Amino acid sequence: MSLNDFFCPDSVAVIGAAREEGKVGRTIFDNIIGSGYKGKVFPVNPKASDINGHKCFSSILDVKQDISLAVIVIPAKFISKVLEECSEKGIKYAIIISAGFKETGVKGAKREKRLIEKAKDYGIRILGPNCLGIIDAACPINASFSANMPSKGKISFISQSGALLTSVLDWAKTSKIGFSKVVSLGNKADISENDLFEAWKNDPQTDVITAYLEGVTDGKEFIRISSKASKKKPIIVIKSGNTDAGARAVSSHTGTLAGSNKAYEAAFKQAGIIRADTIKELFDYAKAFSYQPLPKGKKVAIITNAGGPGIMATDACENNGIQLSSFSTETIDKLKCFLPEAANLYNPVDVLGDALSDRYKKALEVIIQDNNVDAVVVLLTPQAMTEDLETARAIFDVMDKSEKKITVMTSFMGGDEVKKGISYLTKKRIPNFEIPESAVSTLKVMMDYNDWRVEKSYPVIEFNVDEEKVKSVFDRCRSEGRLELGELEAREILEAYRIPVPKAEVAHDVEEAKKIAAGMGYPVVLKIVSPNILHKTDVGGIKVGIEDEKELEESYDDILFSVKRYMPDANISGILVQEMVKDKKETIIGISDDLQFGPMIMFGLGGIYVEVLKDVSFRIAPISEKIAREMIGEIKTIKLLKGTRGETPSDIESIVDVLLRMSQLVTDFPEIMEMDINPLFVMKRGEGSIAGDARIRIGG
Amino acid sequence: MSLNDFFCPDSVAVIGAAREEGKVGRTIFDNIIGSGYKGKVFPVNPKASDINGHKCFSSILDVKQDISLAVIVIPAKFISKVLEECSEKGIKYAIIISAGFKETGVKGAKREKRLIEKAKDYGIRILGPNCLGIIDAACPINASFSANMPSKGKISFISQSGALLTSVLDWAKTSKIGFSKVVSLGNKADISENDLFEAWKNDPQTDVITAYLEGVTDGKEFIRISSKASKKKPIIVIKSGNTDAGARAVSSHTGTLAGSNKAYEAAFKQAGIIRADTIKELFDYAKAFSYQPLPKGKKVAIITNAGGPGIMATDACENNGIQLSSFSTETIDKLKCFLPEAANLYNPVDVLGDALSDRYKKALEVIIQDNNVDAVVVLLTPQAMTEDLETARAIFDVMDKSEKKITVMTSFMGGDEVKKGISYLTKKRIPNFEIPESAVSTLKVMMDYNDWRVEKSYPVIEFNVDEEKVKSVFDRCRSEGRLELGELEAREILEAYRIPVPKAEVAHDVEEAKKIAAGMGYPVVLKIVSPNILHKTDVGGIKVGIEDEKELEESYDDILFSVKRYMPDANISGILVQEMVKDKKETIIGISDDLQFGPMIMFGLGGIYVEVLKDVSFRIAPISEKIAREMIGEIKTIKLLKGTRGETPSDIESIVDVLLRMSQLVTDFPEIMEMDINPLFVMKRGEGSIAGDARIRIGG
Repeated sequence: MSLNDFFCPDSVAVIGAAREEGKVGRTIFDNIIGSGYKGKVFPVNPKASDINGHKCFSSILDVKQDISLAVIVIPAKFISKVLEECSEKGIKYAIIISAGFKETGVKGAKREKRLIEKAKDYGIRILGPNCLGIIDAACPINASFSANMPSKGKISFISQSGALLTSVLDWAKTSKIGFSKVVSLGNKADISENDLFEAWKNDPQTDVITAYLEGVTDGKEFIRISSKASKKKPIIVIKSGNTDAGARAVSSHTGTLAGSNKAYEAAFKQAGIIRADTIKELFDYAKAFSYQPLPKGKKVAIITNAGGPGIMATDACENNGIQLSSFSTETIDKLKCFLPEAANLYNPVDVLGDALSDRYKKALEVIIQDNNVDAVVVLLTPQAMTEDLETARAIFDVMDKSEKKITVMTSFMGGDEVKKGISYLTKKRIPNFEIPESAVSTLKVMMDYNDWRVEKSYPVIEFNVDEEKVKSVFDRCRSEGRLELGELEAREILEAYRIPVPKAEVAHDVEEAKKIAAGMGYPVVLKIVSPNILHKTDVGGIKVGIEDEKELEESYDDILFSVKRYMPDANISGILVQEMVKDKKETIIGISDDLQFGPMIMFGLGGIYVEVLKDVSFRIAPISEKIAREMIGEIKTIKLLKGTRGETPSDIESIVDVLLRMSQLVTDFPEIMEMDINPLFVMKRGEGSIAGDARIRIGG
Repeated sequence: MSLNDFFCPDSVAVIGAAREEGKVGRTIFDNIIGSGYKGKVFPVNPKASDINGHKCFSSILDVKQDISLAVIVIPAKFISKVLEECSEKGIKYAIIISAGFKETGVKGAKREKRLIEKAKDYGIRILGPNCLGIIDAACPINASFSANMPSKGKISFISQSGALLTSVLDWAKTSKIGFSKVVSLGNKADISENDLFEAWKNDPQTDVITAYLEGVTDGKEFIRISSKASKKKPIIVIKSGNTDAGARAVSSHTGTLAGSNKAYEAAFKQAGIIRADTIKELFDYAKAFSYQPLPKGKKVAIITNAGGPGIMATDACENNGIQLSSFSTETIDKLKCFLPEAANLYNPVDVLGDALSDRYKKALEVIIQDNNVDAVVVLLTPQAMTEDLETARAIFDVMDKSEKKITVMTSFMGGDEVKKGISYLTKKRIPNFEIPESAVSTLKVMMDYNDWRVEKSYPVIEFNVDEEKVKSVFDRCRSEGRLELGELEAREILEAYRIPVPKAEVAHDVEEAKKIAAGMGYPVVLKIVSPNILHKTDVGGIKVGIEDEKELEESYDDILFSVKRYMPDANISGILVQEMVKDKKETIIGISDDLQFGPMIMFGLGGIYVEVLKDVSFRIAPISEKIAREMIGEIKTIKLLKGTRGETPSDIESIVDVLLRMSQLVTDFPEIMEMDINPLFVMKRGEGSIAGDARIRIGG
């Protein structure tokens, strides 16, 4: 969807244009006219003959010319009728400013639903309802009721909060930040962030996509669209509302650790979206992306006229894992030529407190020629002789003339005494930051984005599996009215997807158990088998490391005794005798179902690592091999799998395989609500992994 | 030290006052005169008869009246002579503005040292050299060469970077932040942050102490003074320069995990210092502390005219562990009376986009009466009808009239359209923040400080120990030219300080080992004993869990074989047979010596927790019982000691005991450079702890 006619339409009808100043219907009309819009504007209001000197129509049907976009500002209950007229007139896009829909409660939500259904039938795309409208500064058109028309720039912004948008536009005006397209989503009944990301992906007027979102409309689509768009241009999003719904009943490990915020985190990572924590961060990043080239590498040079801020910037680099450039001897020699003796020639370069603009200029000229420099941060404090404006000019001149395009940002620190310099820098598209730390953390975000952009996308692999088998197990469980699958059924599922499970057989008495154990060889594990018992450990239903027949006899009795004591009414089907896996690390792989994004996969080290440290990683299914590797690499305890102190590493490849098979399983069977493989035993490199135990809960 | 005559002296001599405008000696003189200083000012310059119309003296000795403070602006080499005259004149304080000292290299450092020694002899306290001077806005006096005299306020500020100070003063002027006393430390040859903290602790003009420091002069004093001053008023510090010196050779676990940044973190915690990461954070906090009362509790109410920012503030509360107030039904009923139907009556209270100032006013009046509210954050976005200035007035009026003094802060979000409101708020000492998140994180800092302030200080306990024994062991080692103590000597030290060690005895052959083992009972541990081997595990020098005589024989041989293979030249004294401690958790307690703060104690869980997760806590010795408990409670894996899944908790009390004894040991013997008890076995509650192994390195 290009949304071309939506953003810079040939003509606009304002349905509900009002005569009275201050009324929304009047403000929007005035804003369109006042924004310098070059298309035709038709005010529509049956009670008025003209609005502010423009001929008014009593219905859009009276307008002879074609209308590309309708902006609707009439009370909610009349909109349905007007939409019908829009359809008749062949209008493809409508912005519904009016409130009185979902935001007012159940009745309004129903009205909204009916309206959108109707619009779909008519083939009309709707923005809103209950929104502020749109602004396209390049067109130009201000079809919103915000008086602040931003200057023209390359940042496009979506806001799911109208009020926040007014703040941002006011702030942007004061800070002289330009925008391309600005959209207030309102109730997001039809046009959503997905449509806009898709449209802006190829919009030459948009270099950076930014958004304030309180939620996404379609999680899967969001990931699909964003991950493509973010390869073309940065997408920076604030997602607010971190509190998890928490209402869902969760019974698995994965379920307790998951939650909507984890899902958003995972989705943003997979989609290459840059997450900003605050609106300030959002525009710090956006400015830098919009104004400057991406850094080609990760080495940063700092130029300063004061030690303190230089140290601050250095600290920030270290905290962000950014390397300070080591200058070549050539660079050092050149700097030595003109910098005073007391100056620091090494990074950070201190041009000293009495530096005039020329010293900054020469230093910058030399430094950007050094091959070890990918980005420069220029710091300035207003000292007695400091020339803020001249230094700003010098920075721009050097960068403008340079053939080598490297990223430059500044932190001119102070108030009135650096105001002129900052204003010049902003005009010349050199992003200035209040404090050095913000410049550095923005650089870090740009570097990470550069990595993402050049990184290839990998397809999701499809394994050859036995889907029919899984289907039959789920059908059987459902037909028996059971949605929680115990270990034995879970084993069937795993086997169908070729995920290794240990040798195991159910014994119905101790003699049978002995026979099975003798067959598979000691040591073995005994586990209670009962459809009523999901947490076997909690009722004393597991004994591990049974070394011989005698121990087996005792353990068998112990389990039965303990289980009967804790759960006297449990229906016991027998005791599972299972091969004991040796030389292994315990990990956990889980699935939980997210409301927005669907099935989410979790990985972590088992036992206390997951329980106490919550050291786990999440991604949305399906995942590629690359993402599976990322998930494993992301946990803090990864060193334990890689082997500490010369220990043989664990078989990480086999974990990748299980993750991918789990991803396929849950993609094939979205009815899986929760699933844990806990533990997944991981053996030494080359020896594979085995699912020690598993549980599945499916939807009804 | 009160520094009274220093900050608001009766009279000042400017030694080196210059006739030429633009010269530092002239600027300082003009700044003092121009600042409205009411005392006498004597320009001193043998080459001038008058400076800008003021009679000039060729020497301070020519001045008839008393002089309280000398500001020295003459070249470094002449200062020594002038100091002599100051002494003769009975001057007690001098500010040396002049550069040419430590900052220029070895020669300058020597000059500085000589000068300070001389000043000490004369009883003259020195600020600087190489500094900007001081400002006391309450006095008023601007004895600095910064032209920006800040307005009067209650925040005092120390800067170890002169240039940063100029930035801060410029920024403060633009943002209308007032200051009390401002000090540029320069080379900090004499007067340091310690003197100033001590002086400002009781300064009625100072409500909040702030500082930018690149290091501290005397770590122990810093902690002692700060921890007292911070009980009276908040101290907020930026410590820059996080890169660890790293030059010291470290051989212990503790040593590799410690480092100057950890030491500063620990010291700041112990001293109750609030650490700010950026200069922006520093003054966000300072403003709030200076303008508002401390929140009495931790429950926050939010009032907003827009949903989005309300969610942002709520998220920020959750991220900071701050509770949102639950309003009483009375509050809800009262709000219901006047708020529109669509408004949200629950926290965050949404007064809606069309709210005028009166709606804010009434809402605030009701909310602050609720007993569940300890602080209020008022958010405002500039919508069509929003009254920024009137709302600001309303907020001030309500708070001003209210008998209940609770903390209030605002985030008026935007640019020009909220400028007037923000300016009014600032004037009325209601701190406004650009974004809601900053308001909330500042509240969190205030709440934490309130906890610190009311918390009692606990004394350090002194145990009855055998100091003589330790002394003799150290003497013996030193006399043998050894500074690294192995396990056996470390055992002696631990025993002297009554830290439990396992039963153990050295065997010189396998038969002796068998006899010892039989005596103490299996299982046992075998460990190589060699002065050359410090990392026993790395050379195969340890075997644990030896169950019987046969295993002991094998293990004995294995150890000898392995050790000889790895370290053929090691001098082997025997093999230690040690009791095997059962049912225990492994922890680690360590000591490292910090350059600034002296001995630092570390605690963490042993093994992979310390190696892979670096999950440890640090404090500066000596520590109180309360601090020992804090150290233990701070590690992320504390749940493992408290017992997961119904397990019996570990004996945390015994860890407290060992920490305190270690603290005493290292305080009594500062020559301990590094020490590890690794592992410290912790048994079940009530069963104590035992030092499984220990190593000590002492200074020469």
